[in-house]
Amino acid sequence: MKDYIKHDEWNIIEEGFDPALNCISESLFSIGNGRMGQRANFEERYSGDSLRGSYVAGVYYPDKTRVGWWKNGYPEYFAKVLNSANWIGIDIEIDGEVLDLASCKVKDFRRILNMKEGYLLREFTAVTASGKEVKVRAQRFCSIVDDQTGVIRFTVMPVNFSGEIRVTPYVDFDVVNKDSNYGEKFWDEVARSVTDEGGWVVARTVKLDFHVATGMKYVIRKDNNQINLPVLRIEKNKYIGNLVSVPVSAGEELAIEKYAAVISSENHPKDTLKSICETELTRIAGKGFDTMLKEQKAAWELKWEESDIRIKGDVSAQQGIRFNIFQLNQTYTGEDERLNIGPKGFTGEKYGGSTYWDTEAYCLPFYLSTADQNVARNLLLYRYKHLQKAIENAEKLGFTDGAALYPMVTMNGEECHNEWEITFEEIHRNGAIAYAIFDYVRYTGDHQYVIDHGLEVLIAIARFWSQRVNYSEAKQKYVILGVTGPNEYENNVNNNWYTNIIASWCMEYAIDMVRYVREHDEGRFIQLAQKVKFREAEEISRWQNIIDTMYYPTDEEKGTFLQQEGYLDKEQILVGDLPPEHLPLNQKWSWDKILRSCFIKQADVLQGLYFLEDRFDEDTIRRNYEFYEPRTVHESSLSPCVHSIQAALLGKKEKSYELYLRTARLDLDDYNNDTEDGCHITSMAGTWMSVVKGFGGMRIKDGQLHFNPFIPDQWESYSFKIRFRAWLLKIIVAQDKVEIENRSETPVIIYLSGKPLELHPLKTALVPGH
Amino acid sequence: MKDYIKHDEWNIIEEGFDPALNCISESLFSIGNGRMGQRANFEERYSGDSLRGSYVAGVYYPDKTRVGWWKNGYPEYFAKVLNSANWIGIDIEIDGEVLDLASCKVKDFRRILNMKEGYLLREFTAVTASGKEVKVRAQRFCSIVDDQTGVIRFTVMPVNFSGEIRVTPYVDFDVVNKDSNYGEKFWDEVARSVTDEGGWVVARTVKLDFHVATGMKYVIRKDNNQINLPVLRIEKNKYIGNLVSVPVSAGEELAIEKYAAVISSENHPKDTLKSICETELTRIAGKGFDTMLKEQKAAWELKWEESDIRIKGDVSAQQGIRFNIFQLNQTYTGEDERLNIGPKGFTGEKYGGSTYWDTEAYCLPFYLSTADQNVARNLLLYRYKHLQKAIENAEKLGFTDGAALYPMVTMNGEECHNEWEITFEEIHRNGAIAYAIFDYVRYTGDHQYVIDHGLEVLIAIARFWSQRVNYSEAKQKYVILGVTGPNEYENNVNNNWYTNIIASWCMEYAIDMVRYVREHDEGRFIQLAQKVKFREAEEISRWQNIIDTMYYPTDEEKGTFLQQEGYLDKEQILVGDLPPEHLPLNQKWSWDKILRSCFIKQADVLQGLYFLEDRFDEDTIRRNYEFYEPRTVHESSLSPCVHSIQAALLGKKEKSYELYLRTARLDLDDYNNDTEDGCHITSMAGTWMSVVKGFGGMRIKDGQLHFNPFIPDQWESYSFKIRFRAWLLKIIVAQDKVEIENRSETPVIIYLSGKPLELHPLKTALVPGH
Repeated sequence: MKDYIKHDEWNIIEEGFDPALNCISESLFSIGNGRMGQRANFEERYSGDSLRGSYVAGVYYPDKTRVGWWKNGYPEYFAKVLNSANWIGIDIEIDGEVLDLASCKVKDFRRILNMKEGYLLREFTAVTASGKEVKVRAQRFCSIVDDQTGVIRFTVMPVNFSGEIRVTPYVDFDVVNKDSNYGEKFWDEVARSVTDEGGWVVARTVKLDFHVATGMKYVIRKDNNQINLPVLRIEKNKYIGNLVSVPVSAGEELAIEKYAAVISSENHPKDTLKSICETELTRIAGKGFDTMLKEQKAAWELKWEESDIRIKGDVSAQQGIRFNIFQLNQTYTGEDERLNIGPKGFTGEKYGGSTYWDTEAYCLPFYLSTADQNVARNLLLYRYKHLQKAIENAEKLGFTDGAALYPMVTMNGEECHNEWEITFEEIHRNGAIAYAIFDYVRYTGDHQYVIDHGLEVLIAIARFWSQRVNYSEAKQKYVILGVTGPNEYENNVNNNWYTNIIASWCMEYAIDMVRYVREHDEGRFIQLAQKVKFREAEEISRWQNIIDTMYYPTDEEKGTFLQQEGYLDKEQILVGDLPPEHLPLNQKWSWDKILRSCFIKQADVLQGLYFLEDRFDEDTIRRNYEFYEPRTVHESSLSPCVHSIQAALLGKKEKSYELYLRTARLDLDDYNNDTEDGCHITSMAGTWMSVVKGFGGMRIKDGQLHFNPFIPDQWESYSFKIRFRAWLLKIIVAQDKVEIENRSETPVIIYLSGKPLELHPLKTALVPGH
Repeated sequence: MKDYIKHDEWNIIEEGFDPALNCISESLFSIGNGRMGQRANFEERYSGDSLRGSYVAGVYYPDKTRVGWWKNGYPEYFAKVLNSANWIGIDIEIDGEVLDLASCKVKDFRRILNMKEGYLLREFTAVTASGKEVKVRAQRFCSIVDDQTGVIRFTVMPVNFSGEIRVTPYVDFDVVNKDSNYGEKFWDEVARSVTDEGGWVVARTVKLDFHVATGMKYVIRKDNNQINLPVLRIEKNKYIGNLVSVPVSAGEELAIEKYAAVISSENHPKDTLKSICETELTRIAGKGFDTMLKEQKAAWELKWEESDIRIKGDVSAQQGIRFNIFQLNQTYTGEDERLNIGPKGFTGEKYGGSTYWDTEAYCLPFYLSTADQNVARNLLLYRYKHLQKAIENAEKLGFTDGAALYPMVTMNGEECHNEWEITFEEIHRNGAIAYAIFDYVRYTGDHQYVIDHGLEVLIAIARFWSQRVNYSEAKQKYVILGVTGPNEYENNVNNNWYTNIIASWCMEYAIDMVRYVREHDEGRFIQLAQKVKFREAEEISRWQNIIDTMYYPTDEEKGTFLQQEGYLDKEQILVGDLPPEHLPLNQKWSWDKILRSCFIKQADVLQGLYFLEDRFDEDTIRRNYEFYEPRTVHESSLSPCVHSIQAALLGKKEKSYELYLRTARLDLDDYNNDTEDGCHITSMAGTWMSVVKGFGGMRIKDGQLHFNPFIPDQWESYSFKIRFRAWLLKIIVAQDKVEIENRSETPVIIYLSGKPLELHPLKTALVPGH
């Protein structure tokens, strides 16, 4: 827990330079545009603690799986997010002294992430060992308009001397990852070129042969006048740079504008990378920094128009929620259905891979409500395109006949997690992928998606479950043995209630959708049935039989579902009864002790009640919530949001707000002491959900929008916008009223606290006294 | 499964050179003396497939644990058995052509492991590319008399030419392990010295700073006359050698005798290694090869006198059992209580570490019956000396108050396995360590051991169990959750019957021994109680309460114990119903599928019935055996022996013999296609048990020896010797009679098939018609 970020509604602000906080700030002040991203490393050299990170979407390294003893079915590799070329680098030497904040005296240091306009600004005054003082200002962003580029304006002004400043903008592919064996490097040079105006390096990854061209152009100005001085071209393996020595007088401002392009073979043929790189550089340098920044601001304005949440009366909450929305928008734009939302986005390399079930369970609702329908649809298509790999993944484990098991984490559809208890057993992820189709269709009404793509995925998932269950003669029921539920503080349990019910639900939904598609587009149905060799009568009958005979562990006495068989054999202690110094368990207890305890990492039974809320009455939800929440340590960043939403539903407003606070500023306050590794991107969507589904009580029922809002006592008001089908609505919840604005040109009926409310086009409805 | 080893009663013989079998033969023909060991690599250079292996007892490398995600309590390292200096190397060049069997034509190749006399012999004729033919004979052994030394006599005779043969005996520490990252090396040179007569290299391991001095001396003879020729001294980093060019005529025999000493800092101060190495070399070269060989034969004769099993009428079985006994005696001599029995002994590097519960559960009975009592006692002392580490290991997992959890595998008492499901959960190993004390005392009558050392271990183990259980309110019983039983084809199960019963047994035995020690040596008891802060009344009362209230999963209907809770929820299939191409499961099925199946790797419930046989009636054992054995795939080399013994007990003679056969020639016939990695040393003791406890029906009851022998139809007779307390007995079982010879000077009463039989000193009792 830290508290060094200044509270501000639109900006993330750090004042004063504390090297001990640098890695945290590098994560927090990261910039990205969905295609590339960059931690807030310094442009100039820095010899202090730093995690260098420059990431290119889709580019990874398949590292050897780390296992004690290899066993059949283990994944072949785990995907490492690669640190790519350093394109921000600008070495500065002042009369022969390197500008390095680790060795200079630093004054008036200020770092600002301007979320409204989408740029990073850093200002400081540095005093070198010999006493020379310079004022520096560095502003940069990854353009969301020209999404293969980034630009920097870096200015240096001598304060108390006149002298020579040597400036070396460069591109360097000779970079390392934090997570690597024996300092191995992951990039080999393919080609490089340097002129007096800049240059480029094309490098390839040592495995999988991704190629990336990273190039730069630069302009040097003195007091705003472009200057031309002799240039020393520097080139070495994987590196190009231009050294320029500039005589500068005290008070004169030396400015370097650096234009960078990052062109990946994921988007262009390998042999075109150099020329595209050069073209892009010429184009953006032609636009110039100021124009690009203006375009950036305009583009971010549009994003905020759709996705902002406004909280009045609580600057800290306002900053927290905007930071989350900002990072989500920096991470995923929905323009490329091959991409997805990595757990750290572009803010760090930890967790590797890119896509967990987080996307379907936590991120999809955010993009459904705040972006064009195609963005969410692309998230579904991502899985659709991986279906064949998911079938192969299941085959490796012995499943047959087109059964699909989606990977726990993936870059390209292949499993690339590292632990058997997860890859083999945390199979409920398959449920989230089916559920996302349901969620998407429920929200958008886009049934055509089921016909075109969804049903094929649903059949493959239903097939998986129908093979993964087995019939227990002892119980005379279908059981699912050896699974890991969402609560990863258990492993290899039998009959995890959540897994059993989501499995059963998947088969039900698949049966429904089989019938829907056959009814609405028989030609397509027949074609699909042939393609996947669907034995309709036989398969549906088996699915139905399993649905009807599935075993659900329950505690009849308490009226609760049992997280898994035997859960009540554990010693029952509540989190509140633990001495505080035992928390967080994952730092204080051995893994063994955690596994044997009754403590829960994140919603498990409650995750099922959240997904399938319509099927359970409030009392059932309440009994389970009241049993499980006090046993939950919320040590996954994905945990509090589901509980916050459920607490809101149950009228536990204080608890709902308390749980919301646990993630709202998770990274900004470095709540878990791990922000230095990167930000918790996927949980940010959960925070958004806490506000919209929790406080706002938003639900879709029978194709219609419902709200059941409340407002935390601590706030004056909050508002959020929702895209829903043809409509854009803005909901403002104040202490004494709710206002709902229909920003669309057609009327719509929504339900407020269960009562229908007609919203007229371009009008606001005000409901007082709520 | 292979069948290339010639059947012979006393020798392991390979005829003809097949490079594809070389790595297997390198394992099979390994030599060792408990202190050092050497795979059957060639002395001369060999560019074909080979696993180089020269091992020094106790010297290892703590490699980084390989885990996907580190969690608290995971072991810090896994111990790698290190390939140490090549001391056998003798490069041979024939008129400039390197002698290398990978590039020569090879004729009359023969490799013999003479088990009776304890040496390895290799003979062949090689024809070089240019057509030069040489006859070679190489004989070597690791001396069990001078156990820091090995010697070689290597002879070369030109057949069809006269010319110059260059001979380079050397010592080389620049060696690699098969299991290493990026070819890293584990030895750094400390010092080296070379003279015309040989030299030495001292090297240190890159971690833990083990030092080893390996030196050599050599003598060159031509037709048995020592010759002196100019010597070229060769030295480079980690290497010394002597090159001698010898003119040899056709038919003349050139002989190199090479004396090697391997002196480890495990046994001597580091600064003395060089001088001890030189002294040893001078001493053994003084003795000479022939004398050393004579001493070797005499020493092996003594070993065989104690441990031989003689099988008449079945050469293959005879060879198999002698090979097992030979390897066990090569691996562990019992002279150093810091050493133990690695799963591969000195025959390979696989599995790392040194000590599993194999030692207590499978190896102890062999050494108890075939060696001095001190040998078995040293195996117990090994664990006694590791008690503090076992307490620390338990503390890492959150246990307190002197509870001890012995490691799953260790070199020095620290856990160095790699998988949480084993290190955290396969805790039944603690039971085997307590059981070994019981087994030792039962066999030897050495109650003093309990007083001096055993009780301290037993209290610490009982404390562990008393903390590891928890009281289930739901069951109103004590339960043990989250364990892995001996059947490693399950993981993280609840209430594994074997674990529960061995835990309970440990507490019972600890209570008994507390009472025994207090009664027999109260002073010592008080001293120990103070040392370990034993709260006698309170702790014993808790233990007794757990013993009385332990939960044991059972199937009342079938009258069987349940391997674990929920075992009957699994799909029940028998091994016999599986298509043969599905076996072995561990090569054909994914780990996931194995875990979810009902199939059993090795005795689990039956292991409990084997250990605690006296507590169960034969019908109970039969019902469980008949339920579990058909579900057991015996994919651990430790599995068949327990089943074979139990089948014998139940009168299932054919089955007993069939199971015996599965391990008797496991390595010789490369049954599991893995002998190339090394031999299955610990399972060899299990094979010995199959004969003595299975066929021979040997048991100790109330301090007295019982036999209940039968003989497989395929055999004429078999005999084995047993040391039992003051007595040495020889038991001969033929088809029509049993003879028991009392080789001691005092009479003894034993029980044959339940009837007492008095054995007079130095007399043989004959019981016909058995």
